Amino acid sequence: MSTVDLTQGDFTLPGEAGYEQLTLRLAKKWGADTIRDSDGTQLSPEIVQSGYAIYSTVCLVRSVQPWARVHQDKLQQNFLMSFPVVAEKATTTITLLKGYFTEQFVVNFKDSPKSWWQVFDRTTGKEVAKTKWSFNEKKGTVTIQGTTPGHKYTVNFLAFRIWEEISMYNHITNNWGDREHLAAVDPMQPETQKVLLEFLDTWLREHPDTKVVRFTSMFYNFSWFWGADQKTLRDVYSDWGDYAMTVSPRALKLFEKKYGYKLTSEDFVHGGLYNSTHNAPSRRYRDYMEFVHDFVIEFGRKCIDLVHKYQKLAYVFYDDHWVGVEPSSPRFHEFGFDGLIKCVFNAFEVRLCAHSKGVKTHELRLHPYLFPTGLKGEPTFKEGGNPTLDAKNFWIDARRGIVRAPIDRIGLGGYLSLVEPFPEFQDYIEGLLKEFRLLKSFHAGDRPWTAPYKVAVLTAWGDLRAWTCSGHFTPGVPLYDVLESLAGLPLDVQFINFDDLVATGVPKGVKTIINCGRAGTAWSGGHYWSDPRVEQILTQFVQKGGGLVGIGEPSALAQPGQFFKLAQVLGLDRDCGERVANGKFKYDHPHVAATPHFITADVTTPLDLGKETDGIYVFGPDTTVLADKGNSPRLAVHPFGKGRAVYLSGFKFSHENTRLLHRALAWSASQESTWGTWQSSNVRTEATCFARAGKLVVINNAGSDEETVVTLADAKTAKKVKLPAHGIQILDV
Amino acid sequence: MSTVDLTQGDFTLPGEAGYEQLTLRLAKKWGADTIRDSDGTQLSPEIVQSGYAIYSTVCLVRSVQPWARVHQDKLQQNFLMSFPVVAEKATTTITLLKGYFTEQFVVNFKDSPKSWWQVFDRTTGKEVAKTKWSFNEKKGTVTIQGTTPGHKYTVNFLAFRIWEEISMYNHITNNWGDREHLAAVDPMQPETQKVLLEFLDTWLREHPDTKVVRFTSMFYNFSWFWGADQKTLRDVYSDWGDYAMTVSPRALKLFEKKYGYKLTSEDFVHGGLYNSTHNAPSRRYRDYMEFVHDFVIEFGRKCIDLVHKYQKLAYVFYDDHWVGVEPSSPRFHEFGFDGLIKCVFNAFEVRLCAHSKGVKTHELRLHPYLFPTGLKGEPTFKEGGNPTLDAKNFWIDARRGIVRAPIDRIGLGGYLSLVEPFPEFQDYIEGLLKEFRLLKSFHAGDRPWTAPYKVAVLTAWGDLRAWTCSGHFTPGVPLYDVLESLAGLPLDVQFINFDDLVATGVPKGVKTIINCGRAGTAWSGGHYWSDPRVEQILTQFVQKGGGLVGIGEPSALAQPGQFFKLAQVLGLDRDCGERVANGKFKYDHPHVAATPHFITADVTTPLDLGKETDGIYVFGPDTTVLADKGNSPRLAVHPFGKGRAVYLSGFKFSHENTRLLHRALAWSASQESTWGTWQSSNVRTEATCFARAGKLVVINNAGSDEETVVTLADAKTAKKVKLPAHGIQILDV
Repeated sequence: MSTVDLTQGDFTLPGEAGYEQLTLRLAKKWGADTIRDSDGTQLSPEIVQSGYAIYSTVCLVRSVQPWARVHQDKLQQNFLMSFPVVAEKATTTITLLKGYFTEQFVVNFKDSPKSWWQVFDRTTGKEVAKTKWSFNEKKGTVTIQGTTPGHKYTVNFLAFRIWEEISMYNHITNNWGDREHLAAVDPMQPETQKVLLEFLDTWLREHPDTKVVRFTSMFYNFSWFWGADQKTLRDVYSDWGDYAMTVSPRALKLFEKKYGYKLTSEDFVHGGLYNSTHNAPSRRYRDYMEFVHDFVIEFGRKCIDLVHKYQKLAYVFYDDHWVGVEPSSPRFHEFGFDGLIKCVFNAFEVRLCAHSKGVKTHELRLHPYLFPTGLKGEPTFKEGGNPTLDAKNFWIDARRGIVRAPIDRIGLGGYLSLVEPFPEFQDYIEGLLKEFRLLKSFHAGDRPWTAPYKVAVLTAWGDLRAWTCSGHFTPGVPLYDVLESLAGLPLDVQFINFDDLVATGVPKGVKTIINCGRAGTAWSGGHYWSDPRVEQILTQFVQKGGGLVGIGEPSALAQPGQFFKLAQVLGLDRDCGERVANGKFKYDHPHVAATPHFITADVTTPLDLGKETDGIYVFGPDTTVLADKGNSPRLAVHPFGKGRAVYLSGFKFSHENTRLLHRALAWSASQESTWGTWQSSNVRTEATCFARAGKLVVINNAGSDEETVVTLADAKTAKKVKLPAHGIQILDV
Repeated sequence: MSTVDLTQGDFTLPGEAGYEQLTLRLAKKWGADTIRDSDGTQLSPEIVQSGYAIYSTVCLVRSVQPWARVHQDKLQQNFLMSFPVVAEKATTTITLLKGYFTEQFVVNFKDSPKSWWQVFDRTTGKEVAKTKWSFNEKKGTVTIQGTTPGHKYTVNFLAFRIWEEISMYNHITNNWGDREHLAAVDPMQPETQKVLLEFLDTWLREHPDTKVVRFTSMFYNFSWFWGADQKTLRDVYSDWGDYAMTVSPRALKLFEKKYGYKLTSEDFVHGGLYNSTHNAPSRRYRDYMEFVHDFVIEFGRKCIDLVHKYQKLAYVFYDDHWVGVEPSSPRFHEFGFDGLIKCVFNAFEVRLCAHSKGVKTHELRLHPYLFPTGLKGEPTFKEGGNPTLDAKNFWIDARRGIVRAPIDRIGLGGYLSLVEPFPEFQDYIEGLLKEFRLLKSFHAGDRPWTAPYKVAVLTAWGDLRAWTCSGHFTPGVPLYDVLESLAGLPLDVQFINFDDLVATGVPKGVKTIINCGRAGTAWSGGHYWSDPRVEQILTQFVQKGGGLVGIGEPSALAQPGQFFKLAQVLGLDRDCGERVANGKFKYDHPHVAATPHFITADVTTPLDLGKETDGIYVFGPDTTVLADKGNSPRLAVHPFGKGRAVYLSGFKFSHENTRLLHRALAWSASQESTWGTWQSSNVRTEATCFARAGKLVVINNAGSDEETVVTLADAKTAKKVKLPAHGIQILDV
């Protein structure tokens, strides 16, 4: 390992024209091998020709503005649901875009509204016959005849988007005034494709010094519908994974031809819920995703082939226009990308990046972004900011993931000039990069130690949404918190969906399964639990010795007299208010400290599980309640057959809860006997062994100095380790 | 009014043999006109022949024990669901009574199990074919062939009850040792009817001094299934209004003949939820209730006719065996009862009693019951108890209702001897009785002033469960709290159900409607909201100027993209977890004290609405949020059309919240202009005007001295009133 050069390579520096000297000085200090441009910055010839590899960003769909402006019917579109209107008379008129941001949307009256739109009586839930409504292009309205006073009506209609959302967001956030509003063109139109490929060809020819073309990302943005009043309701709807903004009459026609059935507007609108990634997807929508993924691969491949023709590399940025790209898809390799770049705030995003197969290079863009202010408007690179501390805190979050999964490169983004007055920051990044290169070297030809059992996370999405719940961390979605805990634990984690489970059962080696989320969500599984085979397979899995960790409303599905499909396995269920007359088993009231159990052995502070599920009741004395609140268990364990189940009423990422989860998984998998190997006693620290290098890596995940005792391979021999705040220790073992 | 004798009459005293002198002394002091026996006490000839009218209690169905013991097939029965068993193999055996109290139940193997029982695969939700299971009478089991390992199974079976529940409860609670276990006979069997009528005839003949026969109550107890382990799960199921314990093969056959369709065991079992009054009833179950009510009237009338034949009066006690009696039913008068006796803890129970039509006499049995300890085991008539204070506190709760609705008599129950060492209690009751007689005199030929608008409470039960949610107060059912508030308010309150609403619309004079409860409950309405006419009628009602007060999850029904059917009327809806991607309108964050509104004008302490509904979001600026918590509105108002809606996220009875509700109703009904008439400023006090007597009654509902200012008929002229703790003031107006 001593042969590794820790001062050089695997780092992408954001260059900045006008600051050539700084750019080259920091490129050297930080050991960059690559220099990139950023949103708002450009590279000067002096930088481009300095011998470093050059990354250049390109966003194809918004790159052909003059053409887009004269081909308004080739802009991207989507279905919108008008806000509900309650009928007062037998004729009701709905202004389609009322409540929506009219700088983003214009109604698509061009593509035969009667073919594509639908009007619903939301009181009966039934569609209004097409003969009963008419539209007025001039007024932007639909008028419905024969409405029932007191019923509410909505119109699902197609709208073109005349302002691309990332352009719109940056423009409005940064007060860009009368700078051009960029629009995104629809790549599914043959003419558009021709224009885009021509543009790319020219661009590639005109960028001879660019070594890496960084696509931002491919063609379709995540869904983001803005409201009319940005102060009170800017985001009418926003979802990092919804394919809503890929829709067009052409797409729907091609879909029908390929799949043999027709999708309707309501397949996309769902009464205004759209196809949020957080809700369990319909099978029809899954077909549509597959259809779009096919198209994005097919046309994306043409773009990438062109890049390769010019002897350049093609990287893809996993944010913004990533819909249809699906880096976790088994077909992702078909694009032929050379690299994947993920911007990370959290450890689970490191794992998300590392998880993608089909690219050689996995790169992280670290935070802080080199901007004067952070994401919430707090000062970073300006008076009052502490960018070094910010960098340390972001680093300890990401590092947990980097220790567990191989990452090839890291980089920064933004305005490099901003770091000039912060020499401490410059030094910290230099050290951080050495730390990264050392950790990377340990991964070479090796894997960090993992526990001798596999863990599966069961969701409606399975591996397609491995290590994320759609985009960056969202509070109130407990699986995010679980993923953040898992991202740094010495566990082999798989993500499975219900179709996989029914088709092939629980994957080999998996000893315990996590099901976590609120009822109806994609994360707990929603309607997928209506297939009795799911309950059967998982019940038998635990009967035969497997483990289950249910969090929140696991396996929830409204049924007569029960709520959790796996209630018998968990030894408890949830009363949603229908059991006023049903008695509840009186369990022994617990007190965490007073109830010794393997799972709670490291609990020293009051449990904080975030937003919790209430109304839990246990079936009998076989269920041991380890923590409760107001007669509703918060943490309970239940042996079932030869296996074991654990229930947690919520989950929130913290060092304490990460340990709790780790222990819950080990206990549910009946693996207490293997507990202790490479285990760090202090919950604010974690230990990892790389056998090939013979190194024990101990990291401090806290901003305070910490001491810990690490047990070695035999789970007995203990080593005391002292770690400075944010620090790391590498020991020979 | 001065002609009324306040010292005499309208009072039922519990006499006690062995304490003849005390009985007669207190009968005189308290002005009793009637002496009764109680559970556990008897009257001696000296008392019976003292010239007072005599009440005697009789419970027919448990009165013929020797016959019941030799006719075990004539005992009452019911369906039970076995506790779920998860199959491990292709053959699964279920022990039917496992988990149930075998001193209460024995399995009914006599009545062709294959005809009446059902076995369910609860994993698929489907019934198991009758050819696939067999039963073993000796072992008390059912064995199912062809079970799928990992699926869970239950058996719905018939069980005889060998111990009547009130007998069982008293026996076990009071450690009665080897005293006889009484069983209740099935009154639907012709032979049983014959035996019961013979018994009654003899009993009537043998009680020549009895003037009033108090039935306890008629034939069927409320549902109460006990568990095997009384320490951890005594009440497997208990519901004050469920007809579960009326079922028998004979009843089911007669039902089929009359209604032309067959009920199944699952119509009663519902996956273990049974037909809890708290859940929205099915139409099939409503038919069955009607069928039983018919029978109870028909056979009950024969009993009452017999009582009348002996020149006695027939009263019915509204507790215990009241199922099928239905004192709120429009057919109740057909029984021919002379009186109805209700035991009361709360004001709503006073209203419940007064509400019943078809009896001449409405009598309340007040608390405290003359027992050494109270309901929760606290001392009453023994060392450490304070029965006078208990009596005062019970009285101020009941009095609110007595001021609002006419009650004919009051009484006490229990062991009279216990009051002997409490002369203060004896004096207090004397005064209380004078207060009651005075209030009763005000009601004579008059009604207390009520606001010039009517209020309707909309539930799945409507008037059949007026002024109750099934039995005594149950925490966690917010409509109980609402009823307790309403019971003392100067409002004309009606109870309507969804069928009435659809058939005849909102009743005339009703200006505002309350819908209150958790989703799926009978109180919010559950599946009844799936009829679009309900939404239509109520939406139009508010559009045209009506009011709506929604509490908890009003009009809740799972639908795509919405939850409250009346969301547009309320101006808000609930996110049950499916709207992670949907933006929420940012309202101005309120602070009750800083947001002047008619509704909150008297709010001086932080709102406490009990268990509240979270996830509420408003649609736009038309909805004014008056109180919130964690971005979820708790109290909001919304004008809609010409009408108004108010939303409360929960409700808990308190003096403050009673005022809040009163104001919310007035505001929603657009009746601010009529506010102030006979209004008492201090929320712990209430004022009522009886016009005919020219009396203003001001009551203190608190245990502290209070001052208040009452505005008179003109809503302006103010009178200052001082009230001692628990006190009352009568002013001439």
